[in-house]
Amino acid sequence: MSNKYDVTQYDRPSVSVDVLLFTIEEGELKILLIKRNEEPFLGTWALPGGFVRIEESLDDAAKRELFEESGVKNIYLEQLFTFGAPKRDPRTRVITVTYMALAGKSEWKLSSSGDAQDAAFFKVDGLPKLAFDHAEIVKYGLERLRNKLGYTNIVLGLLPGAFTLTELQKVYEIILKTKIDKRNFRKKILSTGLISASGKKLEGIAHRPAMLYTFKNKKIVITD
Amino acid sequence: MSNKYDVTQYDRPSVSVDVLLFTIEEGELKILLIKRNEEPFLGTWALPGGFVRIEESLDDAAKRELFEESGVKNIYLEQLFTFGAPKRDPRTRVITVTYMALAGKSEWKLSSSGDAQDAAFFKVDGLPKLAFDHAEIVKYGLERLRNKLGYTNIVLGLLPGAFTLTELQKVYEIILKTKIDKRNFRKKILSTGLISASGKKLEGIAHRPAMLYTFKNKKIVITD
Repeated sequence: MSNKYDVTQYDRPSVSVDVLLFTIEEGELKILLIKRNEEPFLGTWALPGGFVRIEESLDDAAKRELFEESGVKNIYLEQLFTFGAPKRDPRTRVITVTYMALAGKSEWKLSSSGDAQDAAFFKVDGLPKLAFDHAEIVKYGLERLRNKLGYTNIVLGLLPGAFTLTELQKVYEIILKTKIDKRNFRKKILSTGLISASGKKLEGIAHRPAMLYTFKNKKIVITD
Repeated sequence: MSNKYDVTQYDRPSVSVDVLLFTIEEGELKILLIKRNEEPFLGTWALPGGFVRIEESLDDAAKRELFEESGVKNIYLEQLFTFGAPKRDPRTRVITVTYMALAGKSEWKLSSSGDAQDAAFFKVDGLPKLAFDHAEIVKYGLERLRNKLGYTNIVLGLLPGAFTLTELQKVYEIILKTKIDKRNFRKKILSTGLISASGKKLEGIAHRPAMLYTFKNKKIVITD
């Protein structure tokens, strides 16, 4: 290999991962944040994340950082977008590969260590000041999350295996932060082909028990 | 800042961009490749791309590399996915941020320079052996492209401003590599809400001239 093309001649940026973990709690859409335990932005809230190790895959780095900083594990994370504006980190050039997940909060217990001194869920409509460009990243993630409701099964993890259309509508309303007309919702969600009637009905005392539905695809697919 | 958290302590990967530029030519879906003019994989076909400069945004790097290696410019590129398997480059750890575009071929003239000795379009169903993990990246891009037909206006750049449903169907059939039933296609594409009737009809000698349609959104939006 000639020196002209020696890859080591190029200045290298640092590469990090950051995780957007959304959940619904008390009827509100929330996101997981950690309080930074290091400079820059010491004591400021931020997305859980950190530097990718040189022999580690991007997915593994995201899982590791999420667990180290918040105690959350066994979550299906999907790559969202890579942010690389030259000045987004005051230290040096840091390109960050972001990951997104939407999951039921009961699945984990928060505990922070490593570069984080605290971890907590915040309402997406009342976030504290965030480190770096994380406010912009959260805004982007929210937009993508809301768009994905229309054509993916991203809310799968927030619902029981079989659910009523009323339960599904409630989840959509919380994430979209808007009331939806019941008939319109039913028509639209059925036309997506994402869910199907289970044939079973909600057990209980109702005179006309509601039909239970399931997602056709039992594995979350949020890429598309 | 304590040494413990000094960002410079971390080994840094190299970061590159790679571009998937799809077009339709002679009724076939094709992708732009360049022939490498450097090691490794000297003389092997690859996606146009290269290293991100330390003070350059990711988008700018993608546009610059595409132009340097193929002469193509003024294309709307959108970030696709970031590939970062630790051993994907034999030289060192290289994380690559990929970009995708679908455009009409008449818009440019190929000419290669820099790290490329040639540039040409290849049928996606008959690609030569590709450098690095580029075959895997092309496979991923094709899958995403095909899925995006269902809910985005990604084919906008391949059609005139107003088009018949027959013209649109032909483009879909080429990209999906399958015959589509005419009535099903019309019903499905209209139900997406992506296009609307222009009110004008195809001029010509036909007894029943076809209605012309337009995309409601005149700007390509392929993220979602």
